[in-house]
Amino acid sequence: MITQKEIKYYSSLLQKKYRQKEKKFIAEGDKLITEGIESGFIPEVIFTTTPFFEEQKDYFNSLKEFRIEKIRTVELNKLADTKNPQHIIAVFPFIDKKFKSQQIHSKLLVYLDNISDPGNTGTILRNCDWFGITDVMISENSVELHNPKVVRSTMGSLFHLNIYENISMENLEELKRKGYKIICTDITGEDISEFTLPEKSLLVFSNEAHGPDYSIHELADHIISITKKGKAESLNVASASAVILNTLV
Amino acid sequence: MITQKEIKYYSSLLQKKYRQKEKKFIAEGDKLITEGIESGFIPEVIFTTTPFFEEQKDYFNSLKEFRIEKIRTVELNKLADTKNPQHIIAVFPFIDKKFKSQQIHSKLLVYLDNISDPGNTGTILRNCDWFGITDVMISENSVELHNPKVVRSTMGSLFHLNIYENISMENLEELKRKGYKIICTDITGEDISEFTLPEKSLLVFSNEAHGPDYSIHELADHIISITKKGKAESLNVASASAVILNTLV
Repeated sequence: MITQKEIKYYSSLLQKKYRQKEKKFIAEGDKLITEGIESGFIPEVIFTTTPFFEEQKDYFNSLKEFRIEKIRTVELNKLADTKNPQHIIAVFPFIDKKFKSQQIHSKLLVYLDNISDPGNTGTILRNCDWFGITDVMISENSVELHNPKVVRSTMGSLFHLNIYENISMENLEELKRKGYKIICTDITGEDISEFTLPEKSLLVFSNEAHGPDYSIHELADHIISITKKGKAESLNVASASAVILNTLV
Repeated sequence: MITQKEIKYYSSLLQKKYRQKEKKFIAEGDKLITEGIESGFIPEVIFTTTPFFEEQKDYFNSLKEFRIEKIRTVELNKLADTKNPQHIIAVFPFIDKKFKSQQIHSKLLVYLDNISDPGNTGTILRNCDWFGITDVMISENSVELHNPKVVRSTMGSLFHLNIYENISMENLEELKRKGYKIICTDITGEDISEFTLPEKSLLVFSNEAHGPDYSIHELADHIISITKKGKAESLNVASASAVILNTLV
């Protein structure tokens, strides 16, 4: 049985402050939860409603090694970030990894520079996962990985990647010293269709309204660009990331 | 001077029912409004607050041929779809065009098949505008073009394109008879990197959860696919559209 106090505790995880303090986050929907479990992450608790539990007996049977709590819909809604929540919600421990440059072995890294829109961050992570990127760094001033909308829009990809948050300029400089070339995308730069990735690269995807951060621009070894053929002022950063990964990887 | 009745009338345009009846929509923010006006569309009325009007005298001077109404922030909020609205909102007449196959001359068309997420529709339109597409068709079961979130996420691109809504299977069959090849994207299909666009093509972007509609699949001349290198189950449809347009156009 779950107490009201516990419900209150778990619903506090919808707020950044409590999430960061407790280092736990909420994942909504069977698809996301299954991806998490299949990737080896262990939910602290899974919430569902009695009708959904009865309807999905086989599914819940596959989850029987975990703590499952049946609660009323009104309580489930308190744990959900969406207006029409799915009938299942799980609490996972944070999945980001601590950055240590000597532990980075992938030859192609992605860095999110000041990405504030959670839908964009989630979609970029999903794109990285589709195009075979394994290691993603997120800048200090980007939206946090465990924000419910980021989690949701990754469609489970956050569980497949090594993700490092709060990456500083010093961290990027360390990577540069390890031989990584820093590659920024901007409105003008080398045409991606004629660009070849250096052997060790860190691809920067920047906030589309502000462009690459000044200090990143200073650090960059290459500036690349997607050719514009029409009239739009800029490309959405998630769409740009898909084009770049598809072209260069 | 504006009456409360008029404010009420204009704020009703935030609802699909009234929007469709009046054939007018709300555009929020100076950037979007400027794009609309520069593309030759005439706002019926522009709302702002007195402080913003005073602060942006030059800007409003450039708009003086239009009806400008200064209202209180509390009233402006009633006209806005966002929580923190910008200080300027305009009402435009609908901009979609009536589909007549004999008036379609572009050799490359894009068709949105059952796209329900407004952010995705807006981003696809923005991608089309970036990659030089001029004519976009939207299926009957997709989210409507003039939905405030679609409008916002186009970042102004909706004003640059010829957009046809409520496109039926019969319309697509007409285009096929005019020599257009129908090209669907799906999880499996010809690799886009080895595919060459037929001289006259209609590119279909489908709902990522459901894939191409069965009747579209039946009509398709080619099924194309973006190679997956990682573990994600699917690509976001807006990201996929950017990759396809960048590769094929």
